[in-house]
Amino acid sequence: MAALIALDWGTSSLRGYLLAGDGSILETRRQPWGLRNLPEGGFAAALAGISRGWPRLPRIAAGMVGARGGWREMPYLATPTGVARLARALGEIVAADGAPLRLVPGLRDPRGPDVMRGEETQVLGAVARDPALAARATLVLPGTHSKWVEVRDGEVRGFRTAMTGELYALLLRHSILGADTGGDRDAGDEPAFVDGVRTARDSGAAGALTRIFAARARLLDGSLAARAVPAWLSGLLVGEEIRGMRARCAEAGAEADAPVLVGDVALCARYRLALQQFGIASRTAAADAAAHGLWRIAADAGLVSPTEHPR
Amino acid sequence: MAALIALDWGTSSLRGYLLAGDGSILETRRQPWGLRNLPEGGFAAALAGISRGWPRLPRIAAGMVGARGGWREMPYLATPTGVARLARALGEIVAADGAPLRLVPGLRDPRGPDVMRGEETQVLGAVARDPALAARATLVLPGTHSKWVEVRDGEVRGFRTAMTGELYALLLRHSILGADTGGDRDAGDEPAFVDGVRTARDSGAAGALTRIFAARARLLDGSLAARAVPAWLSGLLVGEEIRGMRARCAEAGAEADAPVLVGDVALCARYRLALQQFGIASRTAAADAAAHGLWRIAADAGLVSPTEHPR
Repeated sequence: MAALIALDWGTSSLRGYLLAGDGSILETRRQPWGLRNLPEGGFAAALAGISRGWPRLPRIAAGMVGARGGWREMPYLATPTGVARLARALGEIVAADGAPLRLVPGLRDPRGPDVMRGEETQVLGAVARDPALAARATLVLPGTHSKWVEVRDGEVRGFRTAMTGELYALLLRHSILGADTGGDRDAGDEPAFVDGVRTARDSGAAGALTRIFAARARLLDGSLAARAVPAWLSGLLVGEEIRGMRARCAEAGAEADAPVLVGDVALCARYRLALQQFGIASRTAAADAAAHGLWRIAADAGLVSPTEHPR
Repeated sequence: MAALIALDWGTSSLRGYLLAGDGSILETRRQPWGLRNLPEGGFAAALAGISRGWPRLPRIAAGMVGARGGWREMPYLATPTGVARLARALGEIVAADGAPLRLVPGLRDPRGPDVMRGEETQVLGAVARDPALAARATLVLPGTHSKWVEVRDGEVRGFRTAMTGELYALLLRHSILGADTGGDRDAGDEPAFVDGVRTARDSGAAGALTRIFAARARLLDGSLAARAVPAWLSGLLVGEEIRGMRARCAEAGAEADAPVLVGDVALCARYRLALQQFGIASRTAAADAAAHGLWRIAADAGLVSPTEHPR
């Protein structure tokens, strides 16, 4: 029986989940109603639309909906933070239908400083689904702003952002590197991607920014086909993300965990392939981490009475 | 007496120099007629306009005018290359007035690979003006695409590009880091610039891409004023350029030279300040390096008969 409406509400999309009392997913919906693309009527209309026809139930949302410029700005809690602290700090909006929508706060790592909104919920969801991760794990959430997250004792101990996806889009669309390439139609070119990853891997402490202009030089001399440039550039930037994050770990004297990838299946597969070039084994977490995280936080906040332990 | 018309013709501007037989500059003109902003009538009209009223003289140009998409695509000569090889490889366009315009080829460093157009002429001009640089020097030409150039025995032995200026503009205009900052009105904020440089310097082998998102996190927590973000970001990227280039040098086991800065006075001063944060002394080359380089190449090609050695 349905017990909770859970929303993963980001910059470019809105995902709605109808969850049962045991935390299982009864229905999933997706709309392009991210913060940058709200329907007419704004946040309230998007909320009504995504849950149309679903019963009146407790509702909870995580992600950029709680950012500055979102529906309501929620604070950032400092790391380390786990489910219990997030559950105690939920915010509340009373929607047009008179019922509340609970909002999950973001996290702030004072050591960067660095911030996240939404990923904390995915991480805690992935840990809830796979308790073996709770004691100690490194979770990697690839994307526009990739997050490398340290989990210890069931909490988010710290994290670091790499703007890999955003940099890739900017360079391909607006910089000289994207000129004459025809855009990212062929970003899936695997040999070019792997070559880019290895170029970053082999850039040593100098890093890949001193190698990035080779994308242009190689297009001009014909050693890299115009259509292969996007994949090569993607590989270089993902490779630089991995190189930099591992170097940070090594300099901190920390033992590196085998990363656990969380997120879109195709993107996680690309990161898995990139990590292999560094000789790093990785695995992919269970799907729908956001839904599981929202359910766990809602349960801890008393919004739902679990009929049994979440799977 | 006037002996040569020399053009430094880039992507965003066209500079014309009227040079005397001894290489000294009689007159300088500047127009916004770079490749992306040609006047009506295109290249031919720009050439006629920049030299209006000047006597009919041998003419020579360097820069993006010889790029793909320029007036005529010139080849890249492989490094190492000096004045003599460039002079032997000049191209020629017969302009609308029936007289030729000579074009200087670009350079290609096969080790990157990497390419340049125009900077080779500036470097050789700076060396001509200061013969102490000929034996061994590292010249740094900051800008949209910064070049770090190794000079040995009067030739360009190799070089490396950092896309620092282009990355800065992209991130500020199009990425989340530029949001809420009001653009680069206050990019001159010196303490913020220095703080950004030091953040990159202290990023170690991980590099500054793992720190860049701090620009957003610090704006959100108020530890970096919105108006200081552009200067901080500029410092971070210039600092990362220096960090990466020095690390490359160290890994190659090469002894690092004190860099000689070539280019815009204000930009060179920023780089000088950034280099100081690394404890690296630098100095700035004589102005008008492009004009001096064009004169040297033209003289070597026999386009002008030097009345005396260039100063």
